[in-house]
Amino acid sequence: MILGAGIAGMTTALEMTRLGYSCTILEAQTSAGGRVRTIRSGDVVDEIDSMQTCQFDVDDDLYFNAGPSRIAQHHEFLLGYCRDFGVELETFTNDNRGAWLHSPNAFGGQPQVARRLIADTRGGIAELLSTAISQNALDGELTATDKANILAMLQQYGDLDINNNYAATPRAGFPGQENVGSRQRGELLSPRQLQQIVTDFFWEFRLSFSQGFDQQPTMLQPVGGMDRVARAFEAQVVNNIVYQAVVTEIRKTENGARVVYADRFGTPTTMDADYCVVTIPAPVLATIANNFSAAHQAEVAGFQYSSAVRIAFQSPRFWEQDHNIYGGISWTDQDITQIWYPNYGFHRTNGIIIGAYIFDGPSGAAFTGLGPQQRIDTTLAQASNVHAQMTGLAMHGISIAWSKVPFQMGGWGTSDASVLLAADDNIFFAGEHLSLLQGWQEGAIQSAYFAIDGVVDRDVNASLLG
Amino acid sequence: MILGAGIAGMTTALEMTRLGYSCTILEAQTSAGGRVRTIRSGDVVDEIDSMQTCQFDVDDDLYFNAGPSRIAQHHEFLLGYCRDFGVELETFTNDNRGAWLHSPNAFGGQPQVARRLIADTRGGIAELLSTAISQNALDGELTATDKANILAMLQQYGDLDINNNYAATPRAGFPGQENVGSRQRGELLSPRQLQQIVTDFFWEFRLSFSQGFDQQPTMLQPVGGMDRVARAFEAQVVNNIVYQAVVTEIRKTENGARVVYADRFGTPTTMDADYCVVTIPAPVLATIANNFSAAHQAEVAGFQYSSAVRIAFQSPRFWEQDHNIYGGISWTDQDITQIWYPNYGFHRTNGIIIGAYIFDGPSGAAFTGLGPQQRIDTTLAQASNVHAQMTGLAMHGISIAWSKVPFQMGGWGTSDASVLLAADDNIFFAGEHLSLLQGWQEGAIQSAYFAIDGVVDRDVNASLLG
Repeated sequence: MILGAGIAGMTTALEMTRLGYSCTILEAQTSAGGRVRTIRSGDVVDEIDSMQTCQFDVDDDLYFNAGPSRIAQHHEFLLGYCRDFGVELETFTNDNRGAWLHSPNAFGGQPQVARRLIADTRGGIAELLSTAISQNALDGELTATDKANILAMLQQYGDLDINNNYAATPRAGFPGQENVGSRQRGELLSPRQLQQIVTDFFWEFRLSFSQGFDQQPTMLQPVGGMDRVARAFEAQVVNNIVYQAVVTEIRKTENGARVVYADRFGTPTTMDADYCVVTIPAPVLATIANNFSAAHQAEVAGFQYSSAVRIAFQSPRFWEQDHNIYGGISWTDQDITQIWYPNYGFHRTNGIIIGAYIFDGPSGAAFTGLGPQQRIDTTLAQASNVHAQMTGLAMHGISIAWSKVPFQMGGWGTSDASVLLAADDNIFFAGEHLSLLQGWQEGAIQSAYFAIDGVVDRDVNASLLG
Repeated sequence: MILGAGIAGMTTALEMTRLGYSCTILEAQTSAGGRVRTIRSGDVVDEIDSMQTCQFDVDDDLYFNAGPSRIAQHHEFLLGYCRDFGVELETFTNDNRGAWLHSPNAFGGQPQVARRLIADTRGGIAELLSTAISQNALDGELTATDKANILAMLQQYGDLDINNNYAATPRAGFPGQENVGSRQRGELLSPRQLQQIVTDFFWEFRLSFSQGFDQQPTMLQPVGGMDRVARAFEAQVVNNIVYQAVVTEIRKTENGARVVYADRFGTPTTMDADYCVVTIPAPVLATIANNFSAAHQAEVAGFQYSSAVRIAFQSPRFWEQDHNIYGGISWTDQDITQIWYPNYGFHRTNGIIIGAYIFDGPSGAAFTGLGPQQRIDTTLAQASNVHAQMTGLAMHGISIAWSKVPFQMGGWGTSDASVLLAADDNIFFAGEHLSLLQGWQEGAIQSAYFAIDGVVDRDVNASLLG
């Protein structure tokens, strides 16, 4: 018995079936995938206190990945399934040097092209370190040979001049690059001193974000929407899924587990099994009657989830047409945090632009507290400080605040898992929140593998004892 | 009269036609595009002393961009034409942190995953600079506030620990990442000291390559092959093109220009025009009889071109299957220099892998000197030091040494243009070699615009005088 037909639950069903087990997945909703959701024209975003219907034009390109949106190239298990199931992939860009960084408090509120900040930061660091080395300040650490080698490397690292000064570099772009492309190559932008750069917010993870192991290039996305992954998994296990089965009770029993759920007609139904793998997100699980151990109950009750919010719009592709921005992410220190440009369908008339992606924290909580129209209004007001065109061009806004989505009630787990990694008698737990890769589909798969290993070990031991 | 139906010539014809001029392009070959070539099953690569026929399987995915292969997102003119002509684009990856760096002389010849070198380099730089700052070595340059700000920034820049030491970081990946994906998250790789790292060749532009203005993300490529660009331009001006017209003579005349060419039957044919725009590559132009000024002739004769060589193979996608490498470039300091993985068609059975891409220099000259089979053998021998699977899996090798390709005789211009930027009477010159963007299609377009401006100015002045 598997509770929840997200990636963790479907992986469990798929692999345990392959191992010869008979599996049933109870899924509360009418389709599988959990938070792996792609919103298209006519789709409904249901929250506990609102309902939105997606008004995008009907078009294969016009979709909004409301949940997971990218796959690291070393997420080998997920990618293995994509290969096996024929889910077509394309490149996803995190680090677009033509995208922008923005703060109302820096550079007079003018967005800065990422390449300039990055080039100036590299150049400034290389110049300062070269100065220290040349002044023999690091002779305690470095031999004469080390010094010569490192100085040579730094010259290229920062594109320093022959005197190891960071003067000006084409890496930073050319004047007017905010608005146009390759026309102006004559004049270089003046470099900005590191001392100045670091007084802005910009370096705060925005300049290191794509250095992270799970965010480095190459990143990938399914062609046509992330729910292609969910649909592909679902096709494998569709006969194992009982849809619209809302679990109301989970009990350890003497030799297994018993679950009570309301079936699609609302009729209370009981199901027994030797083992139960619970992949229900902790905030939902915490509301379901159970007889778990006190320690398991306590960890479920206290498990924190991100208050992730995303808001998408349909818009003519002004970012490509006016600014030569092809995919990637712009960052702002306003609440909306990120603006995502589509990494596909370049040059088509319209695209889906994500006007706000808030991971968590006070901004996430604040946006979660707003109604759909307020979220859109606030997002447009803030996003238009970055791209003035958002006002007027961006339309059909639709938002999702994961902490208010029924049967999810959170973005992804952020607590350290401990008790839930061990089974409670014959009840096992899985889900991205119980993995080292919280918030990633790869984590959901790994947690499923961990639970399967647990069930199989238990089962083998039980057989041996029997 | 326009000589050469490459991107420069076709841009000239297209835009001058729009301005009301009547244009004819003389093109030596049977199709347009010049060096914008994509090789597919059955295509012939003709060099002055060899001929190869592409043996790839017949498949839309199995193509080899033999010339230009990427478009910077700020190459606005080329991208504008792509938009207007409906050339579909997708993302091209230069900087894949999962690709490899290799030297027979470093790390015992074992390829190193780029992410590790990059993380260790950033970490080492950040640590050294932090040390210098903490030891007050840069107090001449930095205030106390600067120091605090920069130290905080560096901690994140290099992922330093709380004591500003570069200890170990997930950014570098995990043990076993050369071969597998996300399984092992427990143990971090030991960091390597900057002193050691810089003794390898790796930093020599390989770690800075994608920092360059024209190589930064986002890079783009046409879906289906770069010749989609050539075909799209050709469709615009096809009625202006005389194919298989091999120019043998170019003369300034009293009121214009006269060209003699061998038509497709080999018959010498004379054509007169008010203006002539010559886009023929300099090494070819140098062999054509003309009455240019001595200065123009001298610059043509001395114009240097790169000896670019590319060699492609069809292969099962072992780089994805075995190593989780999705697109991008691996680097080696062997002659072959680069290995390119396809940025599209992920997970399909076969792909086209570029086993060698040599820009220029002694390696380029050496490979140009080899025959097709020798090039393949040498490439496989060297590439298998990086990927052992190349021996056995890579097949249907096909090479192009641009310095030996009739009507091109070089990769791209590398001399500084000077005299040729000015017309010689009514003869104007264009082509990538006469632009600030040598080797780029965008440069060819810009040089065409420059020539068009010259013609129009001359024409307006002539009218005023007349």
